[in-house]
Amino acid sequence: EAEKIPIKTIVIIIAMQTEALPLVTKFQLSEDIDSVFPKGVPWVRYHGIYKDLNINIIWPGKDGVLGVDSVGTVSASLVTYASIQALQPDLIINAGTSGGFKAKGACIGDVFLVSGVAFHDRRIPIPVFDQYGICGKETLSTPNLLKEVNLKVGKLSTGDSLDMSPQDEAAIIANDATVKDMEGAAVAYVADLLSVPAIFIKAITDIVDGDKPTAEEFLQNLVAVTAALDQSVTEVVDFVSGKCISEL
Amino acid sequence: EAEKIPIKTIVIIIAMQTEALPLVTKFQLSEDIDSVFPKGVPWVRYHGIYKDLNINIIWPGKDGVLGVDSVGTVSASLVTYASIQALQPDLIINAGTSGGFKAKGACIGDVFLVSGVAFHDRRIPIPVFDQYGICGKETLSTPNLLKEVNLKVGKLSTGDSLDMSPQDEAAIIANDATVKDMEGAAVAYVADLLSVPAIFIKAITDIVDGDKPTAEEFLQNLVAVTAALDQSVTEVVDFVSGKCISEL
Repeated sequence: EAEKIPIKTIVIIIAMQTEALPLVTKFQLSEDIDSVFPKGVPWVRYHGIYKDLNINIIWPGKDGVLGVDSVGTVSASLVTYASIQALQPDLIINAGTSGGFKAKGACIGDVFLVSGVAFHDRRIPIPVFDQYGICGKETLSTPNLLKEVNLKVGKLSTGDSLDMSPQDEAAIIANDATVKDMEGAAVAYVADLLSVPAIFIKAITDIVDGDKPTAEEFLQNLVAVTAALDQSVTEVVDFVSGKCISEL
Repeated sequence: EAEKIPIKTIVIIIAMQTEALPLVTKFQLSEDIDSVFPKGVPWVRYHGIYKDLNINIIWPGKDGVLGVDSVGTVSASLVTYASIQALQPDLIINAGTSGGFKAKGACIGDVFLVSGVAFHDRRIPIPVFDQYGICGKETLSTPNLLKEVNLKVGKLSTGDSLDMSPQDEAAIIANDATVKDMEGAAVAYVADLLSVPAIFIKAITDIVDGDKPTAEEFLQNLVAVTAALDQSVTEVVDFVSGKCISEL
């Protein structure tokens, strides 16, 4: 019956500050003064009311020693867990930039709503453990959202490396993924563990099966593609406002 | 000054049930009836008093869908985080079986006290992000423990795969690691974030640079090597009893 109550609280998990800040401005959110998170962690919460929704953007923050965004599955799982515990959201949105496969129809600047997630760098060649490592699952079905908001649909594969080894590539192909990121499947794992519905919006900054080096292409397109990402996230949040999970 | 107060509460993070249960028996621990963890998670806490210490063995439990031990960095970071929040331990011990490199002096059945940790499967080829991915750090210095308890010393490299790709191997060599596991650096990351001292005890079930397939060798030696691991963990806990962190 939880599915029939209108969505009230949303947690938006975003790994990079560059991706998060335009949305913080757009939704007119404020940074927490008294953190809901424990002392010592760099995790940042921006929050406010937008169209009757409690919006929380959670950014894992800058690494305390190195000063770079705390990307990857470990930080993503920790902030997802801690955010669910502290904020009891009705819906999680994991938004971010990602790589795309042109062989599967992805182009720079495309924004995808993810239909399924899996890991591609957790190889455990023991029966059943192999499936645990991949951790493949479908995401929340949102047919009405897809009718309303113009998004491509594809599967996401997650790993902790920005580059792609031949082993990663074989696993990504086996996962049938169009999109490659560094957080999604970890957010999905934690959301699933704690029974919180989650959707994944990923914008393409670099073509993984193209001829440009990933890191260079990623940095070149990060700001422009973030604008497209944030536009889509806003459209999704606008659509979510006033609806319950089963209406998405 | 926290370092001058005798250690009272220990959290021992162990990824596999086979590794955990003999120690549960040894320390005469009981499983939690009312879990300190949220509803839905498979994480299991065994606890009790042993030699004036509050001992908690935390096992991430069996995957809810697949029924295998919840190994790897995502589960390990989550249980480390949740255990620190719930139990405020003075010391974390991450104990487990692992692979070893004979080129660095490791043999089947050896038990190592880890001198440093790093990740080998988080390749982010962007300046500074590369160091964030590796996340290399020294562990707590425990010179007196090393004098008292007979353990080998070596560095640990962590990744989410049981096997080793050529890229993993290059990174493990760069990390100067003798021991390879699937949790240690994640436990270290979280313990460090929340300023809890942590030590790492790893027993060798398989020789990574040998000629036997890892999965087969691992399964063959798991039970026997676990006995050696649990003996060493007991000796370490006996040594810790009555001491403060700075006396280790």
